[in-house]
Amino acid sequence: MSRQERSIRTRAAILEAAARLFNEFGYEATTIGVLTERIGLTRGGLYFHFTSKEQLARGVLDEAVTVEGLRPQALKLQEWVDLALLIAYRLPREPILGAAIQLSVDPTVRGLFGTRWPDWIALQTEMLAEAKQRGEVLPHIDPATLARLFVGAWTGVQLVTGTLENRTLPDEISSLLDLLLPSVASDAVRTTLDTSPSRAVHLLAQARGSGDTCD
Amino acid sequence: MSRQERSIRTRAAILEAAARLFNEFGYEATTIGVLTERIGLTRGGLYFHFTSKEQLARGVLDEAVTVEGLRPQALKLQEWVDLALLIAYRLPREPILGAAIQLSVDPTVRGLFGTRWPDWIALQTEMLAEAKQRGEVLPHIDPATLARLFVGAWTGVQLVTGTLENRTLPDEISSLLDLLLPSVASDAVRTTLDTSPSRAVHLLAQARGSGDTCD
Repeated sequence: MSRQERSIRTRAAILEAAARLFNEFGYEATTIGVLTERIGLTRGGLYFHFTSKEQLARGVLDEAVTVEGLRPQALKLQEWVDLALLIAYRLPREPILGAAIQLSVDPTVRGLFGTRWPDWIALQTEMLAEAKQRGEVLPHIDPATLARLFVGAWTGVQLVTGTLENRTLPDEISSLLDLLLPSVASDAVRTTLDTSPSRAVHLLAQARGSGDTCD
Repeated sequence: MSRQERSIRTRAAILEAAARLFNEFGYEATTIGVLTERIGLTRGGLYFHFTSKEQLARGVLDEAVTVEGLRPQALKLQEWVDLALLIAYRLPREPILGAAIQLSVDPTVRGLFGTRWPDWIALQTEMLAEAKQRGEVLPHIDPATLARLFVGAWTGVQLVTGTLENRTLPDEISSLLDLLLPSVASDAVRTTLDTSPSRAVHLLAQARGSGDTCD
């Protein structure tokens, strides 16, 4: 492994550790001291990559909008469904995704760094507009409104699910999609959409196996 | 005003001021010092009502599940819609409701006090089960699942809407209901449901005018 590769890996490990702390304790209660202790780095070693807690938060938010695993589908609406399922599958496995939500719901942090919600909304608006142009979405559905409401709904279902026992996020997001799609998709499209929670596993395996991701 | 009335009002004013601070700064960053300064009370005056920040958080959460303004309707499903519209209207006006969400999304605070989401879910499950028994809800809809997803969706839409300009919570929740109801309500019922954002104003005026609330 080259020095550059090692540096990239260390940076990623720091960011993941910081994300775990943000998830566990929130931004305020997370300290650089606890972070360096947890990852076994000196402050100097950390400062080579991140010089402040603020930079760590920005680093988390920078990586929070991701389409890894997404692949072109015959139906554009299936890609929108896939994105929701992929993030639901990845979030419990990738601390950065959960940390970005934790940072976004903290009023102090939000005041400092903003949120990535506008980016998620823009991305989904674009996907839904294309799906609508292709006739996959019902005529009265406004892509921007649906994207806005769905980003909110997805986020809230994630937060509530995290506090409930015996509920997993992929199952809940799959149920949310099943609930919404009859109001969103044209009849012929709806019956062919796959909303099963396990779909994300296959999509990620395909993307990672082929080394081909949309990220 | 009797001494007892004055005491009740002071307690309510303290709780509202604490809720505003929780909303603005989050739980961690809120201090008793800032609170007493803001409401012009001595620590002794505060301690007569609340002896710690923990007690204030518990006080906020205790009052966060409320059905003020809710009135019996011909359709049970209209009552469920009304509850969503009422809280959307009241939340920006009643700091305690927003603070309860802020406390619930903070992992540290949630660890200490839990959340009121299970109570909201239980309340809505009961309403939806009754609506289903009356044939107002489509047969394949499970009241508990819908209640769980809707509490999540409502909460997330509130959080995201709070960060967007030119969007009001009553409008967004009304749109969320319009999006969901075709998948939830039987056809005959759906066309008679009123989801307009202004409905909450009239319900509250009726409830407060008559002095008759379900709270």
